Amino acid sequence: MAAAVLIAIDWGTTSARASLVDADGRITGTRSAPLGVQQVRPGEFPQALDALLGDWRTLDLPRFAAGMIGSRQGWVEAPYCACPAGLDEIVAALAPVHDAAGAAGPDIAIVPGVSCERTGMPDVMRGEEIKVLGVLELLGVDAAEILMPGTHSKWASVAGGRIRRFATAMSGEFYALLREHSILARTLPAGEEGFDADAFDRGVDHALRGEGLLQTAFSVRALALFGRLPPGAGASYLSGLVIGEELRGRPLEGVAEVVVIGAPHLAERFERALRRIGRRVRRFGEEAAWRGLWAVHRRRDGGV
Amino acid sequence: MAAAVLIAIDWGTTSARASLVDADGRITGTRSAPLGVQQVRPGEFPQALDALLGDWRTLDLPRFAAGMIGSRQGWVEAPYCACPAGLDEIVAALAPVHDAAGAAGPDIAIVPGVSCERTGMPDVMRGEEIKVLGVLELLGVDAAEILMPGTHSKWASVAGGRIRRFATAMSGEFYALLREHSILARTLPAGEEGFDADAFDRGVDHALRGEGLLQTAFSVRALALFGRLPPGAGASYLSGLVIGEELRGRPLEGVAEVVVIGAPHLAERFERALRRIGRRVRRFGEEAAWRGLWAVHRRRDGGV
Repeated sequence: MAAAVLIAIDWGTTSARASLVDADGRITGTRSAPLGVQQVRPGEFPQALDALLGDWRTLDLPRFAAGMIGSRQGWVEAPYCACPAGLDEIVAALAPVHDAAGAAGPDIAIVPGVSCERTGMPDVMRGEEIKVLGVLELLGVDAAEILMPGTHSKWASVAGGRIRRFATAMSGEFYALLREHSILARTLPAGEEGFDADAFDRGVDHALRGEGLLQTAFSVRALALFGRLPPGAGASYLSGLVIGEELRGRPLEGVAEVVVIGAPHLAERFERALRRIGRRVRRFGEEAAWRGLWAVHRRRDGGV
Repeated sequence: MAAAVLIAIDWGTTSARASLVDADGRITGTRSAPLGVQQVRPGEFPQALDALLGDWRTLDLPRFAAGMIGSRQGWVEAPYCACPAGLDEIVAALAPVHDAAGAAGPDIAIVPGVSCERTGMPDVMRGEEIKVLGVLELLGVDAAEILMPGTHSKWASVAGGRIRRFATAMSGEFYALLREHSILARTLPAGEEGFDADAFDRGVDHALRGEGLLQTAFSVRALALFGRLPPGAGASYLSGLVIGEELRGRPLEGVAEVVVIGAPHLAERFERALRRIGRRVRRFGEEAAWRGLWAVHRRRDGGV
């Protein structure tokens, strides 16, 4: 097994994960802990990191951390890097951690989030920028349209190796709100429900007709009232409505391929919807973040 | 005081109201009770009506009830009347109540809801159809674009005295979900907040730029992160985003005037947004429902 050259840390709101990465960017081990930024009290991040790393904490390797750990509620605030932002800009804005309470020795750098202005409004992401850099490395490209679906989906447009602009779509959160807390919840059986591909596609197609989610959402109820939705298909239909609405809101003219980075259960749905509107899809998972942190290390430290 | 000729009842999900109406359509008294369809057990609607009417229950006058009282969960199901639907179609579909447990004598008729098909999907309303009929009477017109804002806003297009099509926008519910249950709630102070007209307008304008609510909603958080939203203005801004999105989803080309029927606090916001996009507005309140029920009485019973 090749020797690790860095410890890569993906430290989010609800959990933290760390990987050992070798000189070629390969992962030689991964650990995780329920020590998200929300779970750690101010001042206790050094201890949380030790708990996450276990016996890795004695390794004399640089550590790079991305995600909400760099937010105002995190360990050290790493201010947003404004678009256009690529590897150079992000490495230049790394926030070092100088923490007397931390383990002596190893240096820790926190990756900044990225901000942009779009139609006169700001947008932000934190943790997704490192996945974008990772995917560019993995694909060996410097331009891509990248989707990272989730509670707050992020769409990043990359050209010349830099994120030119991006947008946040609160699709995952809208789905959960409608599924659990809205009047539609009465129509949808509680608990888990199998995926109904036909109902999902029907939702996507209806969303793409363009009335907007405020209007299309009510069709979940109206279809159920008239018995026009198969039992157990409502949640899949609603999922299609929300994902279809997300695609409808994106300027995808001229975009032939979308790179989707995310957990399989969600990425599969977006892939299905994207193929439905004629886009090619390439998928990546958690390897994107590790590769991105490795790229940051290489750029800052000049490789091995 | 002119003699009443009917008892008009607006019986919704959470409350019930009744008015005495004279031969000219004037209201001579109104009563209300927290006896919405959700609060009344099956079989106990006769008692609930007696409680609502009080000493009016001995009046030998026809009663007309509109709203969720005609739903499957109500007293007697009054099946939806399909569009195009006007006074004639609605009167022909009145559902009589024959209930041995009810007060003997007076006849009770329940107004049907209305359904339509739009882009291959069904939509329904129940209780709003009577307000549409009432406003046509009050204005003496047979064509109008009518908005009834609320938890589930209804937009009705009327021509030739009949509702040709309508649409439900879940704007009020989306606003409440985002305001109370989403990540944006962390940014917005709890409890009531004064109306900030500038922030509201800014939200309307941003919504009209067309990115869609899934994307624009996140601007509440991003603006707050950068201190670009005045303290206490977040809820007004979000309200503008949601109402602006509702307007954006409507085909209002060629519509010069919108009739808004609703409670003042909400109708005022919609009026403000509609004027912002160059539409004239006429406003009505609860008189619309009473006048609609009076019109139903006149058509069925031939006036006084």
